[in-house]
Amino acid sequence: MLKRFSISLEESLLEKFDQYILGHQYDNRSEAIRDLIRKVMVRKEWDADKQVMGVISLVFDHHEPRLQEKITLVQHDYHHHIISSTHVHMDHDNCMEVIIVKGQAGEVQELADRLTALRGIRDGNLAMSSTGKSLS
Amino acid sequence: MLKRFSISLEESLLEKFDQYILGHQYDNRSEAIRDLIRKVMVRKEWDADKQVMGVISLVFDHHEPRLQEKITLVQHDYHHHIISSTHVHMDHDNCMEVIIVKGQAGEVQELADRLTALRGIRDGNLAMSSTGKSLS
Amino acid sequence: MLKRFSISLEESLLEKFDQYILGHQYDNRSEAIRDLIRKVMVRKEWDADKQVMGVISLVFDHHEPRLQEKITLVQHDYHHHIISSTHVHMDHDNCMEVIIVKGQAGEVQELADRLTALRGIRDGNLAMSSTGKSLS
Amino acid sequence: MLKRFSISLEESLLEKFDQYILGHQYDNRSEAIRDLIRKVMVRKEWDADKQVMGVISLVFDHHEPRLQEKITLVQHDYHHHIISSTHVHMDHDNCMEVIIVKGQAGEVQELADRLTALRGIRDGNLAMSSTGKSLS
Repeated sequence: MLKRFSISLEESLLEKFDQYILGHQYDNRSEAIRDLIRKVMVRKEWDADKQVMGVISLVFDHHEPRLQEKITLVQHDYHHHIISSTHVHMDHDNCMEVIIVKGQAGEVQELADRLTALRGIRDGNLAMSSTGKSLS
Repeated sequence: MLKRFSISLEESLLEKFDQYILGHQYDNRSEAIRDLIRKVMVRKEWDADKQVMGVISLVFDHHEPRLQEKITLVQHDYHHHIISSTHVHMDHDNCMEVIIVKGQAGEVQELADRLTALRGIRDGNLAMSSTGKSLS
Repeated sequence: MLKRFSISLEESLLEKFDQYILGHQYDNRSEAIRDLIRKVMVRKEWDADKQVMGVISLVFDHHEPRLQEKITLVQHDYHHHIISSTHVHMDHDNCMEVIIVKGQAGEVQELADRLTALRGIRDGNLAMSSTGKSLS
Repeated sequence: MLKRFSISLEESLLEKFDQYILGHQYDNRSEAIRDLIRKVMVRKEWDADKQVMGVISLVFDHHEPRLQEKITLVQHDYHHHIISSTHVHMDHDNCMEVIIVKGQAGEVQELADRLTALRGIRDGNLAMSSTGKSLS
């Protein structure tokens, strides 16, 4: 259920924010403000070690001996948490693997750390997202 | 080809770094330092609007009218850049869609902004990654 | 001049945001939302290389030979931009120097980089702030 | 005491890192790598709620009724932790106040939150720094 309330903002700041809203393709102020608020809430979920969603992305050279095998082995230790893995062949050498994970923030972070630390991983990222429950 | 060189570090700082390496499951100092260096390099690729990889993750309620359709429409405008989309049903209401994109940093950012701004998106993230070419 | 307008938010998200507001000691929703909006605006000023304020903080061991001298020399190259420097003796060895700078974002960043790179600097930070003009 | 050790890095990555080192005015690789390592260590001090240094910067309009008074009142609640405050008159309206604080990470964060939340503060920043002890 949507709840309506009013806020006040300095006129010139509001003008600049309206330009920002246009530039970022938001339909209206509510949408843009909602997004700012949700970002804060997602951050809090992670700080409080709540149940979260994480998206781990790894870039690596598939010629690296046994790396793909190790990536799979580590994932098996967390198989209850891993929802899906997508593998992309970027060029002759480089692959990307994107792993969607659900779990306590600490566990998801630990999995991301273990994968990123594997020898041969060229870039490892963890995007901190949400199950959406606290954002509804 | 690996190149070996030596660096010097204060002994007590090195001890703390060695603990960090253990805690983050790195095999050795080279691996850990390589990771720190690569992070800097990926950041520079994005700042210089180079060819990059991005991973966009969206959380939304699939009951939101026509949202899935709009997500698909926006993606079509960037279909040359989108490599894959993975859709996850998280619970009765919430979905996650993870979109792997290749393109100039500015374009990838723009696509992420447009998707995140759609009405009904509960969380939108862009993980800034790399094609791996500059990291080899 | 304050301008009043209304926005709508999902009720449960609003409840969580109200808890956040309490936890962060804001007087009301307008204050909290205004802060989120301003953060976005400050970030944009820096991205657009506008006139900004930066606060550079350096931690170093004052026993490091000639370091204080070099810190001063670098600052002289930017003396038109530096408003003030505060020096703090933290313990027997460690000092902190906090330098308030006004200038184009790129110049302020460059000064921060040059200072941080000096041999013996243990920690260098740049806080990206604003002249306040775009935030009123 | 400095300790010397060797690491190995892919040749082409090392070349790019050497360009970065030049661009950021570091004297040598040790300096640049030391900085990356220290950043990680400072972050860990804050995460572990250790004794840290923080630099809070506030931008505000000094015409805002009773704001300067409130800024001072809040600071008094933390006077054991505040080392110095510097006040800068930026233009006819805008002031900056930079407060150097020593304490447990959580307390420093709380003070920064309380100050930033005051009505009339246009921008509030907390730079997370270190007492330097863990970085030596």
